[in-house]
Amino acid sequence: MTLLETTNPAAAGGRGEPWISFDTDPGRWRHWKLAIDGPVATLALDTAEDGGLHPGYALKLNSYDLGVDIELHDAVQRLRFEHPEVRAVILTSAKDGVFCAGANIKMLAQASHPLKVNFCKLTNETRLAIEDASASSGQIYLAAVNGAASGGGYEIALATEHILLVDDGSSAVSLPEVPLLGVLPGTGGLTRLTDKRKVRPDRADFLSTVAEGVRGRRALEWGLVDELAPRSRLAEAARARAEALAAGSDRPTGAAGVPLPPLERELGADRIAYPNLTVELDRALGVATFTVLGPAAGGPEAGAPGGPAPERPGEGPEALGAGWWPLAVARELDDAILLLRFNEPEIGTWVLRSQGDPEAVAALDRILLDQADDWLVREVTLYLKRTLKRLELSSRSLVALVEPGSCFAGSLLELVLAADRAFMLEGELEGVDQPPATLRLDGMNLGPLPCPNGLTRLQRRFLGHPEALDAVAARLDEPLEAAEAEALGLVTFVYDEIDFEDEVRLAIEERASLSPDALTGMESNLRCGGPETMETKILGRLTAWQNWVFQRPNAAGEDGALRRFGSGQRPRFDRKRV
Amino acid sequence: MTLLETTNPAAAGGRGEPWISFDTDPGRWRHWKLAIDGPVATLALDTAEDGGLHPGYALKLNSYDLGVDIELHDAVQRLRFEHPEVRAVILTSAKDGVFCAGANIKMLAQASHPLKVNFCKLTNETRLAIEDASASSGQIYLAAVNGAASGGGYEIALATEHILLVDDGSSAVSLPEVPLLGVLPGTGGLTRLTDKRKVRPDRADFLSTVAEGVRGRRALEWGLVDELAPRSRLAEAARARAEALAAGSDRPTGAAGVPLPPLERELGADRIAYPNLTVELDRALGVATFTVLGPAAGGPEAGAPGGPAPERPGEGPEALGAGWWPLAVARELDDAILLLRFNEPEIGTWVLRSQGDPEAVAALDRILLDQADDWLVREVTLYLKRTLKRLELSSRSLVALVEPGSCFAGSLLELVLAADRAFMLEGELEGVDQPPATLRLDGMNLGPLPCPNGLTRLQRRFLGHPEALDAVAARLDEPLEAAEAEALGLVTFVYDEIDFEDEVRLAIEERASLSPDALTGMESNLRCGGPETMETKILGRLTAWQNWVFQRPNAAGEDGALRRFGSGQRPRFDRKRV
Repeated sequence: MTLLETTNPAAAGGRGEPWISFDTDPGRWRHWKLAIDGPVATLALDTAEDGGLHPGYALKLNSYDLGVDIELHDAVQRLRFEHPEVRAVILTSAKDGVFCAGANIKMLAQASHPLKVNFCKLTNETRLAIEDASASSGQIYLAAVNGAASGGGYEIALATEHILLVDDGSSAVSLPEVPLLGVLPGTGGLTRLTDKRKVRPDRADFLSTVAEGVRGRRALEWGLVDELAPRSRLAEAARARAEALAAGSDRPTGAAGVPLPPLERELGADRIAYPNLTVELDRALGVATFTVLGPAAGGPEAGAPGGPAPERPGEGPEALGAGWWPLAVARELDDAILLLRFNEPEIGTWVLRSQGDPEAVAALDRILLDQADDWLVREVTLYLKRTLKRLELSSRSLVALVEPGSCFAGSLLELVLAADRAFMLEGELEGVDQPPATLRLDGMNLGPLPCPNGLTRLQRRFLGHPEALDAVAARLDEPLEAAEAEALGLVTFVYDEIDFEDEVRLAIEERASLSPDALTGMESNLRCGGPETMETKILGRLTAWQNWVFQRPNAAGEDGALRRFGSGQRPRFDRKRV
Repeated sequence: MTLLETTNPAAAGGRGEPWISFDTDPGRWRHWKLAIDGPVATLALDTAEDGGLHPGYALKLNSYDLGVDIELHDAVQRLRFEHPEVRAVILTSAKDGVFCAGANIKMLAQASHPLKVNFCKLTNETRLAIEDASASSGQIYLAAVNGAASGGGYEIALATEHILLVDDGSSAVSLPEVPLLGVLPGTGGLTRLTDKRKVRPDRADFLSTVAEGVRGRRALEWGLVDELAPRSRLAEAARARAEALAAGSDRPTGAAGVPLPPLERELGADRIAYPNLTVELDRALGVATFTVLGPAAGGPEAGAPGGPAPERPGEGPEALGAGWWPLAVARELDDAILLLRFNEPEIGTWVLRSQGDPEAVAALDRILLDQADDWLVREVTLYLKRTLKRLELSSRSLVALVEPGSCFAGSLLELVLAADRAFMLEGELEGVDQPPATLRLDGMNLGPLPCPNGLTRLQRRFLGHPEALDAVAARLDEPLEAAEAEALGLVTFVYDEIDFEDEVRLAIEERASLSPDALTGMESNLRCGGPETMETKILGRLTAWQNWVFQRPNAAGEDGALRRFGSGQRPRFDRKRV
């Protein structure tokens, strides 16, 4: 049973192509083993050699492919929600003498350029989610490197806060991508060496050019790892370190976890429907329209409009669990984004809409804000944060439409601010019994959901214009109609009923006519105004270089290093430096 | 007479290929007109249509190619050194109704990938040199946009501090790269919109997708330009603005400029020799060895070792002019870097050596430090800064060798700190009458020569290790032998006479065997640890994406937008988003 076969092939436009889903759970994992002992979880990699997502390669030496990483992504997510008691996570290997050999090279060599890029993006997001758990969830990751950690294997360890390396005279950490494969350590490796671990650049250069890597005392002296232990003491040392890290965590004791059941999802040929989100595909135009359905107005989870957050037993976030609207919407959006990224590459524009009561969204935002110290509420906010980042990191044009009946308030308004352009309809629609569209800001727009560069979307939008930011911040919790939203700079263009549909259609058609690659490059720059962080450096500088290298004959050509690895033939390089 | 023909074709390994030089002067310019009126210079673009550097395209509508940019690079440089009286520079066009149409598209379409990348890099460096003049030299650039400014044309204007646009109902600023050519506004355009001009990202997105651009009041409101003027008042408004900007400048009055005569340079088949620098090429290994010759020990320009800076009339920087050693070395290094970048792409490793008296270098550094307020001394330091940046921005592996007889002190020591790796020989060499090699730090290592990210090379090297930085800063002005240099973290590896040559040869041979593209990507990441600035974002994120796009069939393929532009045929795109 592979992830490919668990899904409905009809969804790929009836083309019958294999289709990648992200549906899994611990009962179905083939590559990871999770054990929980009090506050410490151990997540051990033990790849099934015959468990590759695609045919044509064996997952030897704990090498990974997309399927392995989808399970890791699932594990990291479930540890946060289902295991409030876990305060430290030991990443290790269940195989003797090898920690992880990194991304499977035969898999990479046979993968198309889009699949390589998408695979690397997801792996990077999962590594960043691990760091987010350590930094923000009180669930701190460490690595017990019990054997060779090569390439992506060392890069997983780099995503943890503490690396313990077995000191056995042979186990090394290494980044053999440049010397063996002609590609980069692109899963954050180069950036984390210099910016996270502060390894001296000449030493990082040395490490990145020697296939055999660095081991033992030199690895420790150079800051490539944090601690050494003999094989006989490794498990004990990891446990001791995990308990020390766990001691500083603020996760609750005695809280019940929130199970994450399979998503309710209907797949049609041109449609994906969840309880709180529908995605409609227009294949001719290359457009997917996301419509988020707001929380049921006046329902128990919404809270009384304008009133205090609901605290009735059985109706708060803990009782509703995965059914609590903010969590349900985050999961559904996240799933839809990944499904479209991997399976619908020709759908180049994503249109973002919403339907519902803005007051109901605002009431839930009040819970997110007022109960921000609650572990579960915090997890939900962090999940929304990661989902919005994933949206912006998708190589698709994002267009938001704000129409009567929409509910772009607070956390949902972030979708409008994430869009490359936002169009708002001014006034009422003839024959439709809806008040004019409004936007509504609240505290969720002022901090809890930052962009990868650490700024809020409003700060990024009004970079260098503090007066514009102040003007917006003075209008929290008010319905803002189109003219005001435009004057405040929250939307790009405002049209009345007569022009709206035509203008939007024209804008989308024009965009759909442009070069998909140029749009991807353009959006990757314009979405990242302002400061850079380690995260943006990994997703921007490092990833862009890796994508360039992936296109080069010296890596991906017939005689390139990636294709020739393991063939017994040396690669043939065009020696010209570009 | 083109730049191609002014040089000795023997230098390209006797292969007889056309060879690009950077030798020009105002008497030979074909595309720019410089007029100086008191403190205000006007630099007007007036391309000679038949003056393209390569055959196959005409430089219509003030479109530019490498030759036009080499002249601009020359003009910016000469304005700094030869015209101390100039405090503001108006960039404009001498053609009616068109400011600049950007990079010539036929030229781009026919250029090889390496030439495209090198061309874009040089244009970016020149735009950054313009910003450096405005920020640091008191020579402030403004743009009088007297007609359409498209693509690279608008990007030149973006590199100035004030953009004045003619308000004639038709002249627009535009970035048509994405809609017309399927590539990015990669000469800083996207980054300067968001990070320098703080244009709202959705507006930047709009501008970057409409070929016709934005004009008049909207351009002003959106912050795309700073000022509008009717055609009849444009020159007057530009002059007034230039005088206002000039008023804040600290450039001297009454100082004589320093002429920049043609460089003395001997070109051989495998050798370039200047008075203070020789470059030897080993084509089999793909290595160029740069040997900087230090200032004549005890000569008048060196100052007495350990003594005060020389102040004897006729022997200071102003009297020696272009012959003053720090300026001469900066010019020679700069020229050699550019020549090798463009003409010797298969020389993938640059080895950096020096010969001379470290005391003599240190004595000149004292002048650079003690007289830092002098306009000429400041210019020399700024030139050294730009040259070191250009070195690190070159897609070549940099290896420094510190041997007996070398003079890596202060500003020259920056070459060692710029290298990807540095090897130092410990002790004396048998049969050679030289004391052991030393390194020597001084104030030039602590601020005046920052990396593009704003840190000193020492700060970048010891990122997150303030104690290491303090230890180094405590050892200024002392000769540091190999063991100390290694303990302080200034060099990568230290070997004695028995091992040095073999270890160095092995390291260079191993590096030469790796994929040139992977090395380029790796070095572009490892050289940029720490914070990012607008400059590093342009040279990293934006450039890496542009290089990726340049490789994609949607741009560069037979049916791609770049190749089909102007053919009357629409490009054919693979619609898959990556």
